[in-house]
Formats: sequence, structure tokens, C-alpha cells
Amino acid sequence: MAGAKDIIIDCDPGQDDAVALLLAVGDSRVNLLGVTTVGGNQSLPKVTHNARAVLEAAHARDVCVHAGSARPLVRRLRVAAEVHGETGLDGVRLPEPVRPLDEGHAVVWIIETVMAREPGTVTLVALGPLTNIALAARMEPRIVERVREVVLMGGAVHEGNASPVAEFNIATDPEAAHIVFHEAWPLTMVGLDVTHQALCTPEVQRRIAGLGSDIASHVCGMMDFFRRAYRANRAFPDPPVHDPCAVAYVIDPGVMEVRRCPVDIELAGIVTAGMTVADLRGPEPDARACHTQVGLRLDIERFWNLVVSAIEAIG
Amino acid sequence: MAGAKDIIIDCDPGQDDAVALLLAVGDSRVNLLGVTTVGGNQSLPKVTHNARAVLEAAHARDVCVHAGSARPLVRRLRVAAEVHGETGLDGVRLPEPVRPLDEGHAVVWIIETVMAREPGTVTLVALGPLTNIALAARMEPRIVERVREVVLMGGAVHEGNASPVAEFNIATDPEAAHIVFHEAWPLTMVGLDVTHQALCTPEVQRRIAGLGSDIASHVCGMMDFFRRAYRANRAFPDPPVHDPCAVAYVIDPGVMEVRRCPVDIELAGIVTAGMTVADLRGPEPDARACHTQVGLRLDIERFWNLVVSAIEAIG
Amino acid sequence: MAGAKDIIIDCDPGQDDAVALLLAVGDSRVNLLGVTTVGGNQSLPKVTHNARAVLEAAHARDVCVHAGSARPLVRRLRVAAEVHGETGLDGVRLPEPVRPLDEGHAVVWIIETVMAREPGTVTLVALGPLTNIALAARMEPRIVERVREVVLMGGAVHEGNASPVAEFNIATDPEAAHIVFHEAWPLTMVGLDVTHQALCTPEVQRRIAGLGSDIASHVCGMMDFFRRAYRANRAFPDPPVHDPCAVAYVIDPGVMEVRRCPVDIELAGIVTAGMTVADLRGPEPDARACHTQVGLRLDIERFWNLVVSAIEAIG
Amino acid sequence: MAGAKDIIIDCDPGQDDAVALLLAVGDSRVNLLGVTTVGGNQSLPKVTHNARAVLEAAHARDVCVHAGSARPLVRRLRVAAEVHGETGLDGVRLPEPVRPLDEGHAVVWIIETVMAREPGTVTLVALGPLTNIALAARMEPRIVERVREVVLMGGAVHEGNASPVAEFNIATDPEAAHIVFHEAWPLTMVGLDVTHQALCTPEVQRRIAGLGSDIASHVCGMMDFFRRAYRANRAFPDPPVHDPCAVAYVIDPGVMEVRRCPVDIELAGIVTAGMTVADLRGPEPDARACHTQVGLRLDIERFWNLVVSAIEAIG
Repeated sequence: MAGAKDIIIDCDPGQDDAVALLLAVGDSRVNLLGVTTVGGNQSLPKVTHNARAVLEAAHARDVCVHAGSARPLVRRLRVAAEVHGETGLDGVRLPEPVRPLDEGHAVVWIIETVMAREPGTVTLVALGPLTNIALAARMEPRIVERVREVVLMGGAVHEGNASPVAEFNIATDPEAAHIVFHEAWPLTMVGLDVTHQALCTPEVQRRIAGLGSDIASHVCGMMDFFRRAYRANRAFPDPPVHDPCAVAYVIDPGVMEVRRCPVDIELAGIVTAGMTVADLRGPEPDARACHTQVGLRLDIERFWNLVVSAIEAIG
Repeated sequence: MAGAKDIIIDCDPGQDDAVALLLAVGDSRVNLLGVTTVGGNQSLPKVTHNARAVLEAAHARDVCVHAGSARPLVRRLRVAAEVHGETGLDGVRLPEPVRPLDEGHAVVWIIETVMAREPGTVTLVALGPLTNIALAARMEPRIVERVREVVLMGGAVHEGNASPVAEFNIATDPEAAHIVFHEAWPLTMVGLDVTHQALCTPEVQRRIAGLGSDIASHVCGMMDFFRRAYRANRAFPDPPVHDPCAVAYVIDPGVMEVRRCPVDIELAGIVTAGMTVADLRGPEPDARACHTQVGLRLDIERFWNLVVSAIEAIG
Repeated sequence: MAGAKDIIIDCDPGQDDAVALLLAVGDSRVNLLGVTTVGGNQSLPKVTHNARAVLEAAHARDVCVHAGSARPLVRRLRVAAEVHGETGLDGVRLPEPVRPLDEGHAVVWIIETVMAREPGTVTLVALGPLTNIALAARMEPRIVERVREVVLMGGAVHEGNASPVAEFNIATDPEAAHIVFHEAWPLTMVGLDVTHQALCTPEVQRRIAGLGSDIASHVCGMMDFFRRAYRANRAFPDPPVHDPCAVAYVIDPGVMEVRRCPVDIELAGIVTAGMTVADLRGPEPDARACHTQVGLRLDIERFWNLVVSAIEAIG
Repeated sequence: MAGAKDIIIDCDPGQDDAVALLLAVGDSRVNLLGVTTVGGNQSLPKVTHNARAVLEAAHARDVCVHAGSARPLVRRLRVAAEVHGETGLDGVRLPEPVRPLDEGHAVVWIIETVMAREPGTVTLVALGPLTNIALAARMEPRIVERVREVVLMGGAVHEGNASPVAEFNIATDPEAAHIVFHEAWPLTMVGLDVTHQALCTPEVQRRIAGLGSDIASHVCGMMDFFRRAYRANRAFPDPPVHDPCAVAYVIDPGVMEVRRCPVDIELAGIVTAGMTVADLRGPEPDARACHTQVGLRLDIERFWNLVVSAIEAIG
């Protein structure tokens, strides 16, 4: 679509990453330049296969997939099999991807893509640990002023899941997050404060199921597993579908209430390592004084309308 | 009053500590066994003098005052003169105390008082850095199971003032807080989540002024200064009157909504040192599984009714 | 003896603490005002009993013993049973002490003793975790300028035992060590650099055994156990007899080569917590610029001569 | 030379890096595949220019130079102008390099070179902050088992320069060092314990001056500046010429006494951040149990003979 925003999605599917990919494929207001993968929810080989399988299921064989970092910069990878299952995408059996894995490292592809395109046009949407994005910024510092913005699912202002105050993506690679949050690009953090509102309730799931398509059926299978996992491990009645919130914000910024504020990443704390420390004291700074903003509230209905419409559009 | 709760107030007045002392003196549901002081809002000599002057002004010459720790256990003391003024109690000129300072160290007096009284009868109300309480627990570990409970103003679940995520009292002596929060006594944390709701609005202040007494006039003078300081330094329209919230909770637990949850103190973080890390994930534990609870919401009208009535009772 | 130095020994016996006590009892150049105990090598009740039993065996019923802190300020106590045995003094069966345990907390007794004596006359000799000394400095800050000096066994410049770079006494209570090292009193750190030279070789032990007394026999029993423990757990051929090095330095400063330098205590490191960080860069500062010094080398023969003579003197 | 070891030098010249480059160019037992640069002693543009100028002066126009990381992974770059001067190579005026800077990022070139060559043949010699080496290991994990070994100048067992216990290269990018030390390749740390023995005394410098060549004259100019800087800033009588020690070890392992031991990097300490924590307790492990070793002592004469001969060979 003319005027569609060019985006790159860096992800580690994951049931919620899968829905995010579907949203990006199905909504014509974004143009998915390619997908890159990073070890996180599961190992790099698994999440890379999952990304390709989701795109195959979404009839998006034109979208390239480049594999990236297998592990965080400094810390050990601890995958979240208890939430996403052994495959990383338990609950569904997707078709084998026809398009082969693209050659070249994700970080190199991100750098080349950003540098080859018009300045200020490419949005980086990061849905996993920030390892690839951090490496890209260090390998080619000029991408920082060349991207349009970074929108990421991760962190939290007032919540935690990996720990009382840290979210999984950031806690998995806090050093990468420190790099990404401290670079001067416009950055929007879509954290648990928002995504814990994006619950796939039975009502929501009925809407998806009602679409009657194969892809809708796949989504429902994933959500069934995700619900069981969240009930068993996190005491949630319905699963929070984190990652599409970030894509939804790129498509329609009105889907979310945001506040501009400085955000730092705790690297050294005993009980706070990996926390995104947002400073909400005092009046809100403007964009010249502060390049980061955090999502605080989701327009739940508007969000699910976006998701359901995209799944419907895929057909 | 028969049935009044015996309390010890450990404090560092401070305008809001002063109101807390008045609440304790004026409300017959608590019996103030004595006051101990700790360096915090201002230096130990200043806050000790202030505590004695407040009691003098409140006609409470029978209440003993013991001076305690001049500084935090490990870190340097950084007083909050920008909030409380050079005297620690700027904005008012109180009468010179007639009762001399009591002899003996605050920590020794706390231990002797708790050990001399019936088990389960003494409530420790801590309104400053937790240095004295921590030292008492280390010097005489048996006080831990002998006190009724510890109720403290400090910390925060979702806010900060000394830093984006740390509150002044805890950030001043995090090691002492770590000691106090990890001992097994019942502990209620009345943090900024609650106390930032206890704003002394012009309407509240008019109620106090309307009492027409000397002590009411003193309170108004302190609040005038406190309001100017909070406007200048913290971007608050009206000053949050932190410390009486903890005393109010002892008098009337219904004044506050609390939630039971584990709380840890971050000692090592670069941007989170001194944070009270509350774990609100999952279902609320019961009192056998968890000895700590945190205040989350204040019944604002009920709170100010308590405060105004106490000031009125002092006359 | 006229001119003998007044010392207080704070300890957690421990086979090497026991030898240190014997050295203090048997050498007339020091006057042992009393002994205080602290949880460390073993639990407080065990080390307190051990201190009393050692004094009984040394015919020193006039020396008072006050029990102090059962645990470190902030961290959990992890006793060193693998080095000192279940009793803390395995390898010997000492007589039951006749003198009852003295009443009153060690910290209170230290404060009262230092404040009651002439300024500049009392040396604090600390042979365990620094919990009691730290509490004394916080409870009564005036002792800092009133003691003659602090001489402690603990820390290391270039070695470690509890970790690659941390020594047991300091690693057990780093916060207490931070307090003690940062106060302005003259402080001599006798660390592993020195004490790992104080090996009780078979030759040394033959000298002790040759004394033929009961107390010499007790020492040999302790050393036999200590040797086996160090061989099994620390890959030492002979046991380093740490604690008497500090007492020896008080008796005869010529027994040790010292260097003046700033020393800080690492509280937050992941692999360095509890390290004594000595800054040996640049020229040696003088005593006005730097109140701390560290032992670097032991005159081994002179040291053992002191120890053997003291055991002989006890008879 | 047949049988010469293939090496890549990653560096940030720096007077001592310059001598290291000369040693690698002049000694036929190593084959310098190329040089990569990293921001450290001075900014990336300056050290890259310096590397090229040194190679020009050494008649080594066939050696490629690729520029790499301008800054550390997480922390800010603080260059050492007080030691190396504003240019990074003060004290000498080298010829302008004829060979242009090679295209492509240092990290990409390192990966391609290592992967293109026979397994087990390429030695990485790192003389600056470890940013490039860390990025290469993360971007292409297969290089870890493909290189022959990593030999680096950095760290210390018992010394410090950037802090009491941390060395400049490691302290500049501790996170990169953590990555490099934790990968399973054979790694030799040539730290300050060794390099502080490599003093360019007046006698050594007279030997170099006696060679009478242009390049010898350049070296003497650099050493004059380096001596003044070390006297003014570090209280050394003569400058320690750190970096050639690592190259010398690759040429002739007998030049240095090494000990195998685990080494960790402290990332979180307040006074120990960037420390290389070597565990020297217990018996020395073998190469299967431990992939890291540290240099402890230099054969000073043998070392300078190597350096002087190499400068002489350049002519």
C-alpha cells in the first residue's frame, strides 16, 4: 500500500510473536521488509523455523527470514519452554515452509537494509531479546540516525514476569537492552503494563475462531496452548498476547496511551537485574529532551479489532 | 485509654514526622511509649531537637525522647534540606522543650522497652531511615518475635522520590532496610503509593487552620513551607504528608488498602539501589507464608479526619 | 606488666583463634582486658563456649568473655565446619570452663570498656567477622577516636580463600568490614598474604610438642585436625595459623612488614563481593593521608618464637 | 617464513601497540595477516591512522588495516590521552601512510579471514579493549573453535592501573572481556603482572637507539614521550611497554612463565568493575579442565632481545 510503513520484525516465535507476524502480514498499513530471528523464547533454530512456518501459513513467501544471534551478549540463554512449549510454538502444526532460509546474518541484513533505504523510513520492531538490534547498532552506528524509530515489546514500568520487576525479553539480554535504550533513536517501549491488558479472552478467541479460515484455526490452537501455559505457570486466567501490541502501535499509534520519560536498564542489581527503570517523576519531557517513551494503557477493543481484521485479511 | 496500642515512634522530624507525632499524641487509641530519633531528613542533633519541640508544643512532656543513630550503617548520610529546610522543620517556630533529652541510646531503650513489656504488645512505628530498628534487631534478636508488629513509612511499590524507583528513607540506609524487611516480624510498608495520596490540599489546610489553636497554627506554618518545597523541588502542587499515614494505619487499619507480598531490598543496583522490590505476581500469599504487606491505597477522607481530630484533641 | 598494651580480642574460635588467645594470655607485653565473641567459624554458642574453654585451659579465669553478634549484619552466616569441625574446635577436648559466661552484650562491653579507659590506650584485635566492631562504632561513634588502633585478621591483598579474591572473615560480613575500614581509626589489616606464611609445619609442631605441657598437647591436637582439614579442603600441606599473626603484630610490630595504602571493601561484585581492595599504585602515603595499612610479609621464625614462648609461659 | 604462525593483531595504537606491530612485522616467526583497530587508547579514527602510519614506517604496505568498533559494547569510552597523548601516538612524527584504509568492518574481516583459513591456524592477538573480538565471537560463533588461540594484553592477577585492581583494556569494555574470556578457545592473558616488568629502561633504549635506523629513531621518540607520561601520571620511572609482551609470547612462549587457572570478569563491582578475577587457589588445572592461562613472569632479557632484533630486521 502506498504510504505503508516499512518495517523489519526481529522476533523469537513464540505464540504471541506468531500473532504479531500475522498482524504485520495482514494489515496493509505496514510493509514487512523482512523478518530476523534471535534466540529467546526458544533456541535460535527453533524460533527461526517457527518464523518461516508462520509466514508460510500466512501465504507470505515473499518475506525473507534471516537468522541472527543464538544467544545473549553476556548472559546465558534460558528459554521459556514452560510458556511456549518445547517447539516454541506448541499447540499448532504449521505447514513446512517452502521458501528456504535466507542466507546471511540477521545483523548484516538489518544494517544493509536500513542503509540502502531512504533515511527515516525503516521502523525496527523488536519482539525478542534485543541482541540483534544491539549488535547492529554497534557494527554500524549510522543506522541509529537512519531508522525511523524502534518499537519494541519488552520491559515494564510497574510489572515483571521473569522477576518481580523484570520482563523476559529485557532480562534475557540486559546488556543488549542497555545498548538499544541508550542510543539516540526514537524508541517506544511496549511493556507488560500494556501487554498484560491484551488478554486473549474466550470472547476474543471466539471472534477469531468465527473467521473459519485455516490461519484462524492455527491461531486458536496456539492460544489454547498459551492459555494453559499461562494458567499453569503465571496465574493468568487468559494469556497476554504481548508482541502484536508493538506491531499494532506502529500501525495505529492511537491504540495505546504513551508517556515520554527516560528509561534506563539495570545491569547490576541482585533482585532488579534486567529491570527497565522508567523515571516518571516530574512533568513529562518533550521529544527533544527525551528520545524514549513507554506505553501505559491499551485500547483493548481497538487492538483486537486490528488483530482480527488482519487474520481475516490473510484469509 | 484501655486497649490503646502501645507504640514506639522512631523518626527524623521533618514536617510530616511532626504531624505523625501529633496524631500519636492526640489520638487515644495509641499509647506513645516514647520517641527515638535517627539522622535522616536532617542531622541527628536537629531532628532530636525537633522531636522534643514538637512534643513540647503538643503538651506531651511525659513522653521520653532518646537519640539514636547519627548516620546510616554503611552509606553516607545525605540530608533532605531542600525538602525540610535547614532546621529540618522550617516554617514554624516551636517552643523550647522543657523536658531534657533522655539519657541512653535509642537502640538500647527500644530493646529494654520491648523486652520489659508483655510479648506481642509493642508496635514499632518507623518514620525515618531504619538504622535504629536494624541495630536493635541485631543487638537483641529476641525483639523480633516479641514486638507486635513493625509499621513503617518508606519504600514504594510503583514510585520513587530519591531516585526513579527508590524512596528517601530506604535509599538512605538500604542495608538497614534489608535487615528489617528480612526479619520475620509482621511488617507493614506504608510507601509512596499511599503517601502520595495524603496531600495537604488548601482545603485540608483550611480545616486545620479552622481549629484556631496554637498547635493548628504551627501545623499550618509547617505545611506552608512544605508546600513551597515540594512545588520547587518535586513538582507537586501540594505536599504529601507521608509519615502520619503509618501512624494512621496503626490507629485504624481500615484507613488503607494493603496487600500481602514478599518485599526485598535492592542493595547493589546501579540505578535501583534502595528500591523496595515487591513481588505482586500471582495470587496473594497468606500471613503464614509471607510476613510482609504493602499499603496500596489510602482512604483520603478517613485519613485527614484522623489527623484533624487528633490536632483538635491536643487543643 | 607495666607498659603492657591493653587489648580486647574479638574472636570466633576456631583453632587459630585459640592459638591467638594463648599468645595474648602467655605474652606479658599485652594485657588482655577481655574477650568478645561473634558468629563466624561456627555458631555463636559454639565459639563462645570455645573461647571460655581455651581461657580455662590457659588458666586465665580472670579474663571475662562477653558474647556478641550471632550473625552478620546483612548476609547469612555460613560457618566453616569443613575447616574447623562441628564444634569449631575439633581435634581437642578442653576442660569445662569454671568461670560463667559474663553478662551483657559484647558490643556494650566493648563500648563501656573503651570509654572508661584512658584515650588512646585500648587496642581492638579482631579475629573474626567484624560485626561486633562495626556495631560498636555505630552505637558509640566516639570510640573511633578513643581506641589506640584496630588490628584485624582478615582480607588479603593478593589472595583469597572464601572466593578467588575474598577472605572468609571479610566475606562473611562485608558490610561490617566496610564500616570498620572506613572509620578513621588507625587500622592494620593482617590478611592472607601474611597468614598463609604462618604454616604450622611438622617442625614447628615438634617444638610445641616438646614443651610437654597440657596446653602444648591441646595445641598439637588442634593442629593435627587443622592440618587434615586444610589438606582435604584447601590443598595446603600444613595449616596456616591465621589469627595469632594479628596478636603477634600488636606484641611486636617488627614481626611483619606492612605497607600503608587505602583499602576499600567490595560490597556489590558478582565474583568479588567481600574483597579487600588495596590500592598499591603509586608511592606509599603517610599516616596523615591514610589511616590503613596492610601486612605483606611475615618474619616466620620470629612469629613462631613468640607463639612457642607464650605457650611455654602458660605452662 | 614456512612454519610462521598466522596472526591477526587487533589494537589501538598507542606507543606500546606500535612496538608490538613492529615486533610482528620484524620477526619472521609470525605472519601478520592483517591489523584491525578498536577505540581505546584514543578514538577510533586516531588509532586507525596510527596503525596505518606505523605499518608505513615499517615498510609493511602489504598488511591490510580494517577499522572496527568506535566504542565499547555497553560503557562509555574514556580514552587515555594522559598516557598516550592527544594523537594516541605522541612523541613521534610518522610518515603518511600510502596504502589506503581497507574497506569493510574489522569484525567482518576477522570472521572471513578465520573462516577462510585452515582450522587451528590463526592466532588472534588482542592489544586493546576486546570489543571487536567479542563482536566477532557473537556474530560468528564458529570462529571460537576455528582459531588456534587468543593471546591478549589486558587484565592483571595482582595489579591494576585503571583502578586499584583493574587494567585499562579490560576496564574499558568489561562486557566484551566477559564474552571473550568465557568462550572455550585457548586464551592466554598477558596482564600487568608481566607487562610491568617490560620497562623501557634507559639501557634498553640505548640499545634501540644504537640501531641507527629511522624506525629505531621513531621508537625512541615514542618512548621518550611514554616515559614522561608514565612518570607524570603513574609514578613509574620507566614506561612499561605492555603490548609487545603478547606478541613476544606468540613468537616464543618461553619468554614468559604462565599458569593455567580460571579467570572471570567482574561486571558489577563498585570498586572492582573490570577486574580479571583469576582463581589461583589449589593445584593448577590441566588444559582440558581450563581453557585460560595467565602470564606471571617475563624473561626480561629474552623479551627485549626479541624486540630489538625485530626493529633491527625492519631496518
